[in-house]
Parts: sequence; structure tokens; C-alpha cells
Amino acid sequence: MTITVAIDAMGGDHGLAVTVAAALSYLKHTLDTKIILVGHRDAVVRALAAAGSFESERVSIQVATQVVTMDEAPALAIRKKKDSSMRVAVNLLKEGRADACVSAGNTGALMAISSFVLKTLPGIERPAIAATLPTYKGQTVVLDLGANINCSAQQLLQFGVMGAMLATAVDGKDRPTVGLLNIGAEAIKGNDVVKEAADLLRASHLNFYGNVEGDDIFKGTVDVVVCDGFTGNVLLKSTEGLARIMATYLREEFSRNLLTKVSSIVARPVIRAFRRRVDPRQYNGATLVGLRGIVVKSHGSADVFAFETAIKRAAAEVTNGVLMRIEEMIAGQQVNVA
Amino acid sequence: MTITVAIDAMGGDHGLAVTVAAALSYLKHTLDTKIILVGHRDAVVRALAAAGSFESERVSIQVATQVVTMDEAPALAIRKKKDSSMRVAVNLLKEGRADACVSAGNTGALMAISSFVLKTLPGIERPAIAATLPTYKGQTVVLDLGANINCSAQQLLQFGVMGAMLATAVDGKDRPTVGLLNIGAEAIKGNDVVKEAADLLRASHLNFYGNVEGDDIFKGTVDVVVCDGFTGNVLLKSTEGLARIMATYLREEFSRNLLTKVSSIVARPVIRAFRRRVDPRQYNGATLVGLRGIVVKSHGSADVFAFETAIKRAAAEVTNGVLMRIEEMIAGQQVNVA
Repeated sequence: MTITVAIDAMGGDHGLAVTVAAALSYLKHTLDTKIILVGHRDAVVRALAAAGSFESERVSIQVATQVVTMDEAPALAIRKKKDSSMRVAVNLLKEGRADACVSAGNTGALMAISSFVLKTLPGIERPAIAATLPTYKGQTVVLDLGANINCSAQQLLQFGVMGAMLATAVDGKDRPTVGLLNIGAEAIKGNDVVKEAADLLRASHLNFYGNVEGDDIFKGTVDVVVCDGFTGNVLLKSTEGLARIMATYLREEFSRNLLTKVSSIVARPVIRAFRRRVDPRQYNGATLVGLRGIVVKSHGSADVFAFETAIKRAAAEVTNGVLMRIEEMIAGQQVNVA
Repeated sequence: MTITVAIDAMGGDHGLAVTVAAALSYLKHTLDTKIILVGHRDAVVRALAAAGSFESERVSIQVATQVVTMDEAPALAIRKKKDSSMRVAVNLLKEGRADACVSAGNTGALMAISSFVLKTLPGIERPAIAATLPTYKGQTVVLDLGANINCSAQQLLQFGVMGAMLATAVDGKDRPTVGLLNIGAEAIKGNDVVKEAADLLRASHLNFYGNVEGDDIFKGTVDVVVCDGFTGNVLLKSTEGLARIMATYLREEFSRNLLTKVSSIVARPVIRAFRRRVDPRQYNGATLVGLRGIVVKSHGSADVFAFETAIKRAAAEVTNGVLMRIEEMIAGQQVNVA
């Protein structure tokens, strides 16, 4: 089957320079795939030309005259930017002209526009943002990462179902274990919502492991970690921040003086292997899961390699029939939970 | 002035082997300090002897016949372990026989016992757990790290006051900046409590910076980061977990084969400098702040170096009159906030 991915070509910190180059690189590495670049026609044509390419059967342009800015209020983006590259890309999905959509733009606006245009899957109250994080044992799907500040126990259960489905469909895990993020040895283990969610998860068809703590994420204790969007967002950003600082420290120590610079040459292959192992670009692409359509959010600061990873993730979700699988599983859960 | 620190000698994963050795090392590096080791007399005497020491004017023993276990329910620890090393150490503080208390035991139990025995400072509803984390620019006080799951806006304001006081008194910062942990570009920026807390912080005498995100912590954007205990606990444990995994990766890459092992010898000074810079033991010792007494919680797995850091932290809080300063500042805030 041919997969068509709509790309918000104007989104992200680097815009067309990254999105167009990543799209072309992706096409080079795949067969039976098409890309629709959404944005200002002239700008897209210029970016294609700069990359030594042009419109073709596999790379088409869909015109959009507006751009959602990175700090635009989502409600305003819905109301005032009906012809934005982000909105038009999501519309292509709705119209069945694309199988998935990728954007590196404003997260809140992408979530709001996608929810408004596509609606949620039956049985899903609110969509969530899910990402795959690297762990010592492999990888773990974590959700929600910021779409839902206050979550009900029922929503946390739904996140568990959606996360398990992603772990199965995209990461190829059979009966993935699901953990509920909680805090440890302290007086009261979690609030009432978390306690109730644990009961719902235990009673569900999921392979529920139980409560997990912050350090279980990178240990790889479970395949899926469920949490509310406030906690998940803080978790994601603080660990990203720490990883960045640690990489900076390592670089600084190796460039401190002549001696350390020499040792950096000797240690280069090791440092390179280390960097490859912790490179966040390999995991770029968060899924807006629970929608009637596959929407992947790339990091705003993504480079070509990272943005191509997000495109690949979107295509993999199409190939593996993630939407249908989640729908089936949610239907099964409802019978069980009710 | 002579400072006396009461140490829960039985607490922590390694118990006496660590607590006694750290106490002796601390005494060696300071003048005018005394330690009271609280625990089973025979066991403490044996641990002192093993470290080539004995009871003296500077190291005394206070007998306690019970031990609070690491997974014991706090309520049970209060009711059934009235002669535990933890409880007796906190009692010494209450009785004025010690100026501060340090324990590596069960966090929930230490918080419950300390609150029950010492009570909170006037104007403080609930104590918090505060730690100093290393950042690119220096260090940041983060609180609460797990004592309070559900926090009111008023409590978050009080955390701000207490955190600012710690940053001033212990870390020597003049008019420290205070940030409120929140999530970024998403639709609704934080829940109602966080929004209300921002208003209270803005109206306070504090040097309020505004909202900060997870990655601002390690960037060192502000001197104090305020959050609820659920978020703070996840944040602390997930970043600890990530740092541990990254250190493991680095070790693994350097010991992969003969060539990488040789390069590890060349790079050893650099790696050592890097490790020193990210060594969490330098920051061991979380303050249970807001109580009528100075109680410092060491990481349960602390080694001698780390536990000594926690003792130093407790002593520094005594020297700098943290309690009185917080009390004064809270009194000032109430006038302002009302």
C-alpha cells in the first residue's frame, strides 16, 4: 500500500529548511510513499529547488497561506488561522487525502486543531500526547506529556489502553506491561485519582504492573508509563534538560586544556558511541493519540535527522494499523470496566 | 557556638557502617561540633570501635531500642515505634539537647514523626521537603519533593517563602529568584491552583520570576523552584534515574573492548572531572522545611561521603539561623498577602 504523509512544511523553529530536506531524505529511503508539503507555494518550491528537487508524483504541494506561530493561543489558531499550513495538513487527513500528518509547530495549537477537525476515537474522552523514551532495557511509551492537565481515573485508564496499543503496534511488544506513575515511600501514595486509576487498570484487560516511580522510567521497568499531562510534561522537559546539561559538561571537560583535548581525540570513538546511545533525535516524534487520524508532533527544534524520525514514526503507525487497534481495544475495555 | 547534631544511627540502607563513619569524619573536619548517635548501644559502640573510635565528649550515644524500617507505614511508626532511633533523635531536637537531626531512614516516617513531635512554624500549614539541585549556573532549591500530594495555592506560596529563605541562608543568595513550575506552550497553562499560586507569588515580597518549565531547573533559570510534592517527587526520581543510566552508558562504552579500555585510561582525568561535576553525593541532604526544628533527610542509599554532606547541610542551617529567618519572613508575607 502507498502511504501519503502530509507535512506542515512551515512549522518548527527551522521551518522549510528542515521539513523539506527531511521529507526528501525520507522518500529516498522508502518505496511506495508520498509526501504532501503544506505551505506557501513559492517558499516550498524554493526550498525544494535549494535541495535539488521539484514537485513530482511523490512530492506534491498543498497551498496554505497562513502560519501558526509558536506562541499563538490554540483557540485563536483555530478561529483565525483556517488556512494555516497546520490546519490544512490536518484537513488533508480528515479528507482522506493523507494517511498521517506531521508538524513541528506549536504543540497546543496542533492538539487543538487536530481535536477540532478529526475528533476523538469512540470511547476516548480526550486525546493524549505519547512519546517513546529510551531506557536501559529498550524503550518505554510515556503518556500524557501535556495535553491534559487534570485527568480523571477513567482517562488514565484510557491512556493505558492507548499506550499499550502503541507499544504493541509501533514497538512490536506483545502484551506490554503498563505502569502507573506514582510517588514512593511517602505517607500517602498518590492522590485519590491515581488510586482509583490503579483499581481501574487492575480490573482491565491490560497487563498492569502496578505503581512505578520516576526512576523506573529510565530503568525500563515497564513498557508503558501512564501519568497526567502536568506531571508528564515536567518529567519530559526536566529529563531533556538534564541530558543536555550532562552532554555540555562532558564537552566542556574534554576541551578544558591541551591535555584534555588530546584525550578527547583518543576517546572520540567512545564518546561518539555514547552520544549515539543517548541521542534524543532517535526518539523524536510524539503521537497525538486517541484521535480519528494519525498526527505526529516533532520537537520544534528538530533537525533534518530528527524530523525524518518523526515522519518514519507517523508512517509506521499507518502501516501497523494503530487507529483500528486502539478502537478495538477501547471497545473491549468498556465492556470490562463497566 | 557549639553545634550538636543528633544522628539516627540505625537509618538508611547501610545503617551504622555509614552513619558512624560519616559522623566521625565530620567531627574531624570541624571544631565546636558534637554528635549524638542514636541507636542500640551495643551496635553503636561496636561501630565506633570498628572505626577506631569510642564514646567521648564530642561523640555521645543516646539509646533507642527500636528501628523504623524502610517500608513501614508512617502512622504505624508514630504509634508503635516510640523508642525508635528516628523518634528519639527528633525528641532530642524537641528537648533542646540537639540543634539539628539527620536521618537516612524512611522519608514518610521521618516527615510524620518530625511533624508530630516538632510541629510546624507559625504561619506554615504543612512542612515540605526541599533539596538543592546542581544546575549549569550553580544550584537551585526545589520544593516540595514529596511531602504534600495535593497543595493549595497558599501552600505553594509558603513553599516559595521557605525555599527563598533556604537559598539565602544556606546557599548565600541575596534576593533569590523564585519560579513556579508549570508546563509550557500547551492549551491551558497549568491548573487553577498553579494560576492562583502565581498571583499570590506575584503579590508577595518574594523576587518572583514567573512560571518556569522542567528544563529551566538544570539551566539554572531561577534560584528556587516551587511545585507540588507529586510533581517534585517524579521530577527528582526521574532525573536521578536518567543521570544514573547515562553514567552507566559511559562506563559501558569505555569498557566495550581493548581499544576503548585503553582510551578510558587516557581519558580518565576528564571522566573523573566530569563525574565529580555530576556527583549527586555533593547535594545529598533534603531539608524538611517548615518545622520548629532542623531535620535533614539523607538519601537512603547514601555512602559515607554523601551522609557527611547531609550532616554539613544540617549544621549550616543551624549556623545560618534558618528557622528564625523563615519565621520572620512568613510573618512579613502574611501581612502582605492578606
